[in-house]
Amino acid sequence: MEIFVILVEPKYAGNVGAVARVMKNFGFSKLIIVSPYFSLDDENCRKYAMHAQDILDQAKIVRNFEDALKIVDYMVGTSSIESKNDKHHLRKAFTVRKFAEEIKKMEGRIGIAFGREDFGLLNKEIKKCDLLVKIPTSESYPSLNLSHAVCIVLYELFLNLNGYSPYEVVLANGKEKEKLYEFFNKLLDVIEYPDFKKERTKILFRRVIGRAMLSKWEYHALMGVFKKAIQKLRN
Amino acid sequence: MEIFVILVEPKYAGNVGAVARVMKNFGFSKLIIVSPYFSLDDENCRKYAMHAQDILDQAKIVRNFEDALKIVDYMVGTSSIESKNDKHHLRKAFTVRKFAEEIKKMEGRIGIAFGREDFGLLNKEIKKCDLLVKIPTSESYPSLNLSHAVCIVLYELFLNLNGYSPYEVVLANGKEKEKLYEFFNKLLDVIEYPDFKKERTKILFRRVIGRAMLSKWEYHALMGVFKKAIQKLRN
Repeated sequence: MEIFVILVEPKYAGNVGAVARVMKNFGFSKLIIVSPYFSLDDENCRKYAMHAQDILDQAKIVRNFEDALKIVDYMVGTSSIESKNDKHHLRKAFTVRKFAEEIKKMEGRIGIAFGREDFGLLNKEIKKCDLLVKIPTSESYPSLNLSHAVCIVLYELFLNLNGYSPYEVVLANGKEKEKLYEFFNKLLDVIEYPDFKKERTKILFRRVIGRAMLSKWEYHALMGVFKKAIQKLRN
Repeated sequence: MEIFVILVEPKYAGNVGAVARVMKNFGFSKLIIVSPYFSLDDENCRKYAMHAQDILDQAKIVRNFEDALKIVDYMVGTSSIESKNDKHHLRKAFTVRKFAEEIKKMEGRIGIAFGREDFGLLNKEIKKCDLLVKIPTSESYPSLNLSHAVCIVLYELFLNLNGYSPYEVVLANGKEKEKLYEFFNKLLDVIEYPDFKKERTKILFRRVIGRAMLSKWEYHALMGVFKKAIQKLRN
């Protein structure tokens, strides 16, 4: 499966440069531009592309949407317009996350088309798409910058296509946290903390740790401190 | 809970404008800028903000990271650098998706800090963050444009904070698809399709529909066509 980013009649060179950069950030390389308003050697275009000059160098320029259709097997249109009518087929859309989950089942050359900065994709273009994908946004200002729209779609595809296993903090489990509370309580005992304050301080510590999303490593570090303190105090 | 987007010493006015726009796209409004290299009335800043001028008007400028820390209860640093060492506490990070899932549990004023376009956040700043968040990217070119980094973080927060129920195509279920195959087979019968081709054509149709991610509405539309055709042919 090959992914093609297709920009339809972009007006601002800087946007196309920014698109090239974010394509490289997420490991995509194939760019098709339908009838741009500028040369890809435009200074702003090159500046915003940063270390993705190769993507601009290899970009394919075509005259119209029909020519882009000929290159791909499957055309996906993007839109921020939400269909209000359930049967309104034309603009019925997957969310970008749903699309990213489904894409692994797809084969061939998949084009993802992004419309003009001001008008998006035209209805006659949308009619020729096999699937529509929508990026959820605030209703009061749904119009995303072109490169931001590309950024979100490619980010979602990147996570799904690479089977990206996110590096996450491994959190301390319930048993470990109970152990930590036990040692905190022992500490209160050995420092002879006033009885009338003890109970609420125990609860307070439990709440603090509860909210802290404590990692395993942090658990071990804190346990080390408490153990050492208790040991010292007992000697 | 309040979210503050904090930009630390941004160099390019256009980036800050683009950040304001994407904040409004995802329904966030509170922007803090640490010691910017330009005025917020810079022409490029205003141009890229589009319909988010109010966010720039209300943005708070502070002198240094410490002053930003005083405004928030919880500081979240963002980074594209992945810790290789499991115990290397300093740059240990949640992925942005994990963070977005966790944020509903958090309270108070949460600042999300984005570093300089070239150097990101300094180690001394990272040390003062309560949590680090990482945006997964391609290893070969991990450096995101500043507004793209903000875009991805706010997109993930938007989906989680708004309990966004994505508008999705309701797919035809297995029973419906079986019904459709049944009517396709009936159609083959009434048009007296050659027996030796029938079996493989049935399989072919099943495969086509299987890949098509058929919606309920499309199912009903196709059923309507087949029923009508069979009815006409039988008369």
